[in-house]
Amino acid sequence: MLEALKAAVLAANLELPRAGLVTLTWGNVSGRDRETGMVVIKPSGVPYGTMTEQDMVVVGPDGRVVEGDRRPSTDTPTHLVLYEGLPGIGGVVHTHSTWATAWAQADRAIPGMGTTHADLSPGEVPVTGPLSPEEVQGEYEIATGASVLATVAERSPREVPAVLVSGHGPFCWGASAKEAVEVAVTLEAVAKMAWLSVALAPAAGPLGPHLIERHFSRKHGPAAYYGQG
Amino acid sequence: MLEALKAAVLAANLELPRAGLVTLTWGNVSGRDRETGMVVIKPSGVPYGTMTEQDMVVVGPDGRVVEGDRRPSTDTPTHLVLYEGLPGIGGVVHTHSTWATAWAQADRAIPGMGTTHADLSPGEVPVTGPLSPEEVQGEYEIATGASVLATVAERSPREVPAVLVSGHGPFCWGASAKEAVEVAVTLEAVAKMAWLSVALAPAAGPLGPHLIERHFSRKHGPAAYYGQG
Amino acid sequence: MLEALKAAVLAANLELPRAGLVTLTWGNVSGRDRETGMVVIKPSGVPYGTMTEQDMVVVGPDGRVVEGDRRPSTDTPTHLVLYEGLPGIGGVVHTHSTWATAWAQADRAIPGMGTTHADLSPGEVPVTGPLSPEEVQGEYEIATGASVLATVAERSPREVPAVLVSGHGPFCWGASAKEAVEVAVTLEAVAKMAWLSVALAPAAGPLGPHLIERHFSRKHGPAAYYGQG
Amino acid sequence: MLEALKAAVLAANLELPRAGLVTLTWGNVSGRDRETGMVVIKPSGVPYGTMTEQDMVVVGPDGRVVEGDRRPSTDTPTHLVLYEGLPGIGGVVHTHSTWATAWAQADRAIPGMGTTHADLSPGEVPVTGPLSPEEVQGEYEIATGASVLATVAERSPREVPAVLVSGHGPFCWGASAKEAVEVAVTLEAVAKMAWLSVALAPAAGPLGPHLIERHFSRKHGPAAYYGQG
Repeated sequence: MLEALKAAVLAANLELPRAGLVTLTWGNVSGRDRETGMVVIKPSGVPYGTMTEQDMVVVGPDGRVVEGDRRPSTDTPTHLVLYEGLPGIGGVVHTHSTWATAWAQADRAIPGMGTTHADLSPGEVPVTGPLSPEEVQGEYEIATGASVLATVAERSPREVPAVLVSGHGPFCWGASAKEAVEVAVTLEAVAKMAWLSVALAPAAGPLGPHLIERHFSRKHGPAAYYGQG
Repeated sequence: MLEALKAAVLAANLELPRAGLVTLTWGNVSGRDRETGMVVIKPSGVPYGTMTEQDMVVVGPDGRVVEGDRRPSTDTPTHLVLYEGLPGIGGVVHTHSTWATAWAQADRAIPGMGTTHADLSPGEVPVTGPLSPEEVQGEYEIATGASVLATVAERSPREVPAVLVSGHGPFCWGASAKEAVEVAVTLEAVAKMAWLSVALAPAAGPLGPHLIERHFSRKHGPAAYYGQG
Repeated sequence: MLEALKAAVLAANLELPRAGLVTLTWGNVSGRDRETGMVVIKPSGVPYGTMTEQDMVVVGPDGRVVEGDRRPSTDTPTHLVLYEGLPGIGGVVHTHSTWATAWAQADRAIPGMGTTHADLSPGEVPVTGPLSPEEVQGEYEIATGASVLATVAERSPREVPAVLVSGHGPFCWGASAKEAVEVAVTLEAVAKMAWLSVALAPAAGPLGPHLIERHFSRKHGPAAYYGQG
Repeated sequence: MLEALKAAVLAANLELPRAGLVTLTWGNVSGRDRETGMVVIKPSGVPYGTMTEQDMVVVGPDGRVVEGDRRPSTDTPTHLVLYEGLPGIGGVVHTHSTWATAWAQADRAIPGMGTTHADLSPGEVPVTGPLSPEEVQGEYEIATGASVLATVAERSPREVPAVLVSGHGPFCWGASAKEAVEVAVTLEAVAKMAWLSVALAPAAGPLGPHLIERHFSRKHGPAAYYGQG
């Protein structure tokens, strides 16, 4: 079942090491089938080099494995919480990519210091609040998803396409698994450039609101004119 | 039309990812035909991996598409302003390359701290002043080009072969698309080394004027003796 | 003799340059045969590009070469001390990997600032105390191993899978040569991210104890649920 | 003439981009024939991708081109001064490698902060003093070589295998072109690690003298026991 989605999710997963976003088997991508609500996700701890479509796991919205011989990613419950809470998304990516994770470990949101960032999001990339000991000891991966949703709050998943889980790393999303990977790639580039800029000019603030608005809307707004339309 | 120029502009565009200057589809190179004034430029948002000569777009000096099925880069108006304002240039490159963009986001010119920089330019790589909200909301890409020209001011495009657009990233130029890419590659190397030197020695100033003059002229002056002549 | 172990140790050694952990011929991996106690180790100063199984050297627990035409790694005595002192380990890796060595040269332990670190170890990656001039002038490589053991102290090799030798670089271990290399790869990633986080937030402390415990135990505890089990 | 030396010098030059030490055509390697004193060197400004043995240029100790259709590297006079002043060396390398050049631009010697550095040299990698305007305007490349020699002073080329030219970049040497490239590779690694260590621990000093002595002599001393002997 869902063979096209499995192929897309596999391809999206394989893009992560190619883009330099993963070490060993860290990182995972999922995609959701809009009709059935089923989610296809990477198996846990399987090397990227030998991963095939057959390794992809299909899980229902309740987390039960519907198809596949593998155990799904340990982060599957977090993915499912995000699909439930963020209307319209079709793909989720989690990585420990170096520069984004450095911000997460520093418990700092990534400020929107340039147009590259504004092309991704009109605001900062926010960082989650702390989990309580009870949340960590209980359904930890579900609590992680809930803290991401609480951080997005009332904003749309297009305006906040990524959140840093404090002390952990980024979760990213998009209309498809492929688009979610593009967000993860962009986030890492933006995280690195912001780190370098802040070191050079600690007092520098974010880009002016007019530039942010212009860049975000030329790529994502109703009158977007970037790309081949 | 302009088949040789299209091939050269395609090759110059493909050099950007090879040199590590671009992420995803960011960055664009154009070349101008000296006789007709026509400009060949990369299409907007097309992946580098599948780009062909047929994807290159020919635009007139007024920005109208003269040939090609693709929408040209959104930065095309900026390129055209630069061709009009900078006498003798034949190629323009725009990237969001990591280290140069870090300086642009910090709103700081890159000081000429070493001979590698002096081989590129006898002065700092300057950063543009801010755009007004009206400029950003109006013909934004044209205003960007005008701010670059205002930053070059009375100097020659050979002495100032690149400018950082504040909060955005570098624009570079040269006698051809190929030479403009070499400027972009050199700029990124120089931006990284200056960043590292400034962190190590915050009080260090630029290279002495005699060394700057010697290096710039041995590569670009009338008595240049670098290369095969 | 020990052909399977030789193949495994060769493969583990070749993984080091592939993972970007070595420059020139620096770095070495060994593996121990549980039945005989024999250790297979990389030869000293042989280029990775041409290394074969025949180049692997078999040494006894006393350091005598039992098989092989090559001189074993100069760090062999350190490896042997670690095998003797750390119960149950089957592989040892030493590298001068860039970011871990930077912490070693700064004589600072790597704090556990995120879940990536907690997946590796529940505590900091410690740094050895200084060697005396007598230890350096005497059986230096043995004294190095002893200082690593003293740093692990009463903890288990699974909780402390790596130690930084002050002013030198990391030694890592695991159940096999392959697992020891995975520790070395993880350590380098963790060292880089901690470096970046500390620069961004010098006052940031380590991850909370509940998160550390959760991550370490989901990967290494009796109820581990990471991977394919 | 000198076909074996040409092949060795070509191979050593091609190793520079492979090791990530050069951008565009920057950097050059030469080798000297011990019997005739002739020097084989890379041509100026020729791309590494298409360079062949025929492009290598043979120059006499006085700098005259003895064989070859190309113009030799602009840095040839510096190489010749080094061959004349440093007894026994057979290869010279000059690069603008990123991290070593960052130290040179900061006008700071690289402190010997770890055993990796001690394996290269028992002391810091020193930086030259300034050239006078007259020296820069006169025989600049010869004056550069003389400033390198003045920095080595009474020490041996084995103890000081590299010098940073202030505001410029490193010159390295060894018994052959190949060994000089190994010094350049090691220097860049050491420069990066020292940069990272100093940022982490600004007050950290160099490695203790006993460790320096032990490491340098186990690799280079009369009782060296590193490598296959």
